[in-house]
Amino acid sequence: VSAGSDFTARLAERVARHGPLCVGLDPSPSLLAQCGLADDATGLVDFGRRVLEAARYALSIVKPQMAYFERHGSAGIAALESLLADCRREGVLVLLDGKRGDIDATGEAYGDAYSRAGAPLRCDAWTAHAWLGLGALERAFARSVAAGTGVFVVVRSSNPEGTPTQHAVLADGRRTTEWVADQIADFNARHARHGASIGAVLGATADDAGALAARMPGAWLLAPGVGAQGATFDDVRRRFGTAASRVLPNVSRGILARGSAPAQIAETLAALRADAAMLRA
Amino acid sequence: VSAGSDFTARLAERVARHGPLCVGLDPSPSLLAQCGLADDATGLVDFGRRVLEAARYALSIVKPQMAYFERHGSAGIAALESLLADCRREGVLVLLDGKRGDIDATGEAYGDAYSRAGAPLRCDAWTAHAWLGLGALERAFARSVAAGTGVFVVVRSSNPEGTPTQHAVLADGRRTTEWVADQIADFNARHARHGASIGAVLGATADDAGALAARMPGAWLLAPGVGAQGATFDDVRRRFGTAASRVLPNVSRGILARGSAPAQIAETLAALRADAAMLRA
Repeated sequence: VSAGSDFTARLAERVARHGPLCVGLDPSPSLLAQCGLADDATGLVDFGRRVLEAARYALSIVKPQMAYFERHGSAGIAALESLLADCRREGVLVLLDGKRGDIDATGEAYGDAYSRAGAPLRCDAWTAHAWLGLGALERAFARSVAAGTGVFVVVRSSNPEGTPTQHAVLADGRRTTEWVADQIADFNARHARHGASIGAVLGATADDAGALAARMPGAWLLAPGVGAQGATFDDVRRRFGTAASRVLPNVSRGILARGSAPAQIAETLAALRADAAMLRA
Repeated sequence: VSAGSDFTARLAERVARHGPLCVGLDPSPSLLAQCGLADDATGLVDFGRRVLEAARYALSIVKPQMAYFERHGSAGIAALESLLADCRREGVLVLLDGKRGDIDATGEAYGDAYSRAGAPLRCDAWTAHAWLGLGALERAFARSVAAGTGVFVVVRSSNPEGTPTQHAVLADGRRTTEWVADQIADFNARHARHGASIGAVLGATADDAGALAARMPGAWLLAPGVGAQGATFDDVRRRFGTAASRVLPNVSRGILARGSAPAQIAETLAALRADAAMLRA
């Protein structure tokens, strides 16, 4: 699989070797403090490298949370660029979690920012919001998919406050989440030669996660909320059913569950990796 | 009004002097080319300065579009920081348009990134997405409001693809947009000593913009879609009714309507400023 291949091909290859665990890189003030690292751009790089090196880069995919890098402005984004370069060199895929969402040319600019060959923030996939409608993101998706990048649209979130909006009903009787899921499936069908490049974020705590997953055949599913937000790997398996094999379970704060020393992070990641592998058993 | 005052106080003072026009800073590849500027970090600064200097900084508020700065990674964000410093020095308010939206600690980190005294991306207000529920953004809002920063939540967008989601109906009969608007009003009521610091983005092309505006008493309303997306200042006045005096009409691509030379931009901005002033007449 070459570096210029589609995201879905790169991800499938990587997951076959290292399993589906998606490791969050969330250098929040709290996690930096737990690690004894400074809350500055150097601390951001040190945190990311500590996690990547603890895993000896034997990870399928990592998910840097943009908010924590933006806190430090251009220096924080430069720190992110350093970590992106490390991951690229070692073959670790990167899902940039910024939950971007804007229309037309602006949406396309986000697609360009994260997908263009040589772009400083070129990654393997990025997360998007759908409040403006999936149709508004078509240019962003097209730009990304053509460049071999994937997008994960937030469909059903792991937090309870999102339920009223996400379970609101359209004129045709579908929930907003079902409508978004159906449009993701439609986009993937129309761009079949790139695989199911548009995936979905489906909270592992949501009862309807499995039903939504079934509406998006072949799509990769990012499941946040494992660990800190109360869902377990067993919940993921039970909620997603046969779609569990397409789930990337995401653990962020939980990677420090056994402590913040490199050896402790290594131990935690090994245990999480074993748990995650059971989803595909 | 001191620099440490609330956003709503700073904005009211500025609008009283310079009117409600919100000038977009959208250095897209297309607008840079029209200006004969390079599509790089230097071009981003040159574009922003050309617009600001054409107006002699006599603008209430400008709206940089994050996507166009992120296209150039950390160098692009450094360019944005230069423009933020220019605006701060000259008293022009900045509404950072990134449409961020994430929960709990992550949402709070965005609030921190754009609001913390001394933060590299400290601005006067920022835009947010509500797909995860307004409740999920409470920590982000609280952080911003306490620091004197405003937030504009995307409620009703100017693009047609957003209508199914935005007009979907909750169990209690309200549309999602109405529910979000009511929660904005509720937040502002609970934080009354900071004024109506949470505003809304309401597309000037939407028939229901006025009804939604009426649900958010006192809140500032950003109305994109004037010019390029087909709405006129007359549409804004007609659609928003008595709330038109709270509207910040936003023109982005349209600032090059008479050409890209500094004198032409100055002439366009003067005409737009006069049109916008009629909303408060």
